[in-house]
Amino acid sequence: MSEKKRPVYIKIKQEDNVAITVDRVSAGSEVMEGVVASQDIPQGHKIALCDIPAGGAIVRYGVVLGYAIDPIAKGQWINEKMLTLPTPPEAEQMRWGVNLRTDLPKPARTTWEGYRNAEGFAGTRNLLGIVTTVQCVAGVLDVAVKRIKEELLPQYPNVDGVVAVNHAYGCGVAIDAPEAKVPIRSIANICKHPNFGGELMIVGLGCEKLTVDKITDRTGPDTVLMLQDYHGFAAQVEAIMAMAKTKLEKLNQRRRETLPLSDLIIGMQCGGSDAFSGITANSAAGYASDLLVSAGATVLFSEVTEVRDGVYLLGERTVDESTCRKLGQEMLWYDRYLEMGGVDRSANPTPGNKKGGLSNIVEKAMGSIAKSGSAPIVEVLSPGERPTKKGLIFAATPASDIVCGPSQLASGITLQVFMTGRGTPYGLEAAPVVKVSSRTDLKEMWPDLIDINAGTIATGDATIEQVGTELFDFILDVASGKKETWAEHWKLYNYMCFFNPAPIT
Amino acid sequence: MSEKKRPVYIKIKQEDNVAITVDRVSAGSEVMEGVVASQDIPQGHKIALCDIPAGGAIVRYGVVLGYAIDPIAKGQWINEKMLTLPTPPEAEQMRWGVNLRTDLPKPARTTWEGYRNAEGFAGTRNLLGIVTTVQCVAGVLDVAVKRIKEELLPQYPNVDGVVAVNHAYGCGVAIDAPEAKVPIRSIANICKHPNFGGELMIVGLGCEKLTVDKITDRTGPDTVLMLQDYHGFAAQVEAIMAMAKTKLEKLNQRRRETLPLSDLIIGMQCGGSDAFSGITANSAAGYASDLLVSAGATVLFSEVTEVRDGVYLLGERTVDESTCRKLGQEMLWYDRYLEMGGVDRSANPTPGNKKGGLSNIVEKAMGSIAKSGSAPIVEVLSPGERPTKKGLIFAATPASDIVCGPSQLASGITLQVFMTGRGTPYGLEAAPVVKVSSRTDLKEMWPDLIDINAGTIATGDATIEQVGTELFDFILDVASGKKETWAEHWKLYNYMCFFNPAPIT
Repeated sequence: MSEKKRPVYIKIKQEDNVAITVDRVSAGSEVMEGVVASQDIPQGHKIALCDIPAGGAIVRYGVVLGYAIDPIAKGQWINEKMLTLPTPPEAEQMRWGVNLRTDLPKPARTTWEGYRNAEGFAGTRNLLGIVTTVQCVAGVLDVAVKRIKEELLPQYPNVDGVVAVNHAYGCGVAIDAPEAKVPIRSIANICKHPNFGGELMIVGLGCEKLTVDKITDRTGPDTVLMLQDYHGFAAQVEAIMAMAKTKLEKLNQRRRETLPLSDLIIGMQCGGSDAFSGITANSAAGYASDLLVSAGATVLFSEVTEVRDGVYLLGERTVDESTCRKLGQEMLWYDRYLEMGGVDRSANPTPGNKKGGLSNIVEKAMGSIAKSGSAPIVEVLSPGERPTKKGLIFAATPASDIVCGPSQLASGITLQVFMTGRGTPYGLEAAPVVKVSSRTDLKEMWPDLIDINAGTIATGDATIEQVGTELFDFILDVASGKKETWAEHWKLYNYMCFFNPAPIT
Repeated sequence: MSEKKRPVYIKIKQEDNVAITVDRVSAGSEVMEGVVASQDIPQGHKIALCDIPAGGAIVRYGVVLGYAIDPIAKGQWINEKMLTLPTPPEAEQMRWGVNLRTDLPKPARTTWEGYRNAEGFAGTRNLLGIVTTVQCVAGVLDVAVKRIKEELLPQYPNVDGVVAVNHAYGCGVAIDAPEAKVPIRSIANICKHPNFGGELMIVGLGCEKLTVDKITDRTGPDTVLMLQDYHGFAAQVEAIMAMAKTKLEKLNQRRRETLPLSDLIIGMQCGGSDAFSGITANSAAGYASDLLVSAGATVLFSEVTEVRDGVYLLGERTVDESTCRKLGQEMLWYDRYLEMGGVDRSANPTPGNKKGGLSNIVEKAMGSIAKSGSAPIVEVLSPGERPTKKGLIFAATPASDIVCGPSQLASGITLQVFMTGRGTPYGLEAAPVVKVSSRTDLKEMWPDLIDINAGTIATGDATIEQVGTELFDFILDVASGKKETWAEHWKLYNYMCFFNPAPIT
């Protein structure tokens, strides 16, 4: 029995003049016929497949990542210091509707078990959500929530948890600034989160700028509790617990039902990416997304600066002109936002990205886009907006993991799939987070944090379709409450860092 | 025995053409000789003491709050809708050194009991501080800190607590943007916080933009722990606990010593202000500040938008030209920051401020400045900077309570005095927060949240000097560990919302 030979490089498109090393490559070893590494090259980094003159294009994914600063010889390692950034693609006059794929793969499973809501998408978890109007109340609410979890929650076995939506917004902010609509909309929309089952609870202070009417029309005393109305701390905690009890009683009546996938809404995100992310984890996520969308589910993907350099590819997949136009507007809004702060999209990549072989934002973007699969894009959302359509949706958010998450939650996602190359223990309390590794090394390093390993795609041990289908099944099992993610198991929760592009005062 | 007659109004300066109502006033009642309220006036609001024509100045604290939009009749209630905002005072060419008071009141106490540090100010608490480089690690760290508090802390009776400095900065940010220096400096400086006793512990991920060398030169394995270096979640938690144990052992050796007040650094802040704040709580805090400063202590006050309209008064108290110039530069920086966001300083006041009788930012500023007392201003700090001098210092921060607090902590304050009119349960885990109410009503409403009541000044039951001295004594008792604040008692901790004026990516 002959041992299966592992590939040593990955070249994506015929026209690429670079390839990615599957493992660390030593100087002098032949990577492919006629291409000998002229120096040691780290895992996941680029090797030149031919001589590239100064000013010559460096091409991966069939796309120009940048231009060589100095001549690069065949077999040389290409790192982030060796290329300049191309100008960003046009975002105003993109072609729409010219790449609408209609033959998406069909999944074997077309139902899941969810918590049906009176309107909108169903929940994947049955949670008591307590939304705050201002950070001032966080200390009191945290004390109260600890007591709710210890003293009340065990009496309501059908309720999965209690989530305090504490955040930094609400007061000391320029609430009438043009961009204040972003955080206000995000907080208003998280009040409607499908996992909160309509049993909304709001805790405010009483003198804050973010008045309750700005985030909900449910302003009655059965929903809203203002700390300044209560006679001191002890009474505040008692009041919060009393209201929580009435909500928990109602939530406890909820049961999962078999539902079509059209009642499911999930989000996709990547963080701590490396050069494998685009070809393993994000590609598998894209395949899972195609399966979900073809069965009627709604999938959000995001991260403006990480699609900016390939936005024309997304424009071609938008279903109509207005969707395409909104896509371009979100790009231009972010261009201006960065420019006001004295930077551009090149500020995105991290030291970890670069160490993982991603030379710049173009290369990162091409990998990032892979998680959107190939379905048509039916809608584009501004940060924190709620969808009005079903299918694949671009939700414009910052690429920052910890801001993208809360923004997608505001848009209503009830589960997030998170692809990572370098590894992050990221989690959200309001929705389970499934973590997918781009490399087998990472899964082996973090067996109790990574849920699905897509690294087998790079080593030829599995196909994108196989891992994508495994991920699709795991998503449905987690959404249905049949499995839990590692982040849920360990109770790893990141903070609710809503995007606020407006000034604080 | 005749009952002492309570005042019904407070007029501050001879030239004022408005007074503040001490309690609610009914239509038809005579507030002072010849001034009859023409309508019901809420507590703490302004009554016109003479007829004011359209365009006429409305004067309180001897300062023009604004100009009447329509004619205002004697006895009329003046609310925030009835006046326009004056142009902000000049900040570039202020006079310096023309109001340097040398006869500050002398306190009876000149020592306290603190934790001496190898360099810089002493601590008021003995805490294990765990600073993070990125929000990604917050979930794991929170789990670990819970275990440290439950399993380790009880073995170290001389250690007061464990503080996870979790924050939203560190990755997904434009780390090379010009203004990124603000959050980076803040996080770097909180590593040196006097209450952490030099036993610094840093938890990072491994691929973030905020690399450890950006915040400290103590980058060794006895101080820094990166989650990506550990074999999964369980190993990460064990590693954090093991490092915490070595730090707790050292911290447990620390003892309080009798120290001069020159080893003490505290901060002043107000939030949820009303029309009484300036004449009761903030004035008493100003007197306490004068006592502290005259005995050698260092007192920070802050909140740029809340001194903007009286900045010339502060300029006159600066000790030299460069300090005065830096004061002006901080004002202009904030003017531009607000302008870029499409707003100006008028965005500061809250609905609660207005309900409490503060018509606009000028009136709020005049009251806010009162907490600085009358000492000379020896230094001006940019947000999150550490002082190089001792005495009264203006630390430029946003006025947002929840951002000012972490910013002052970064500057090194070991105790904060927080004045409030409407009431907030605000607290910080890294330093005790003393809460002072501007009204007796609030102290009665929140007996287990307000530490000191300054409302007795408005009712004539105590003088500013009396309450100021009571506050001074309480500050020293809390700083010395002899008393605890209500926020400490209930463990009310707001989040570490560092100021980040730079873009996220």
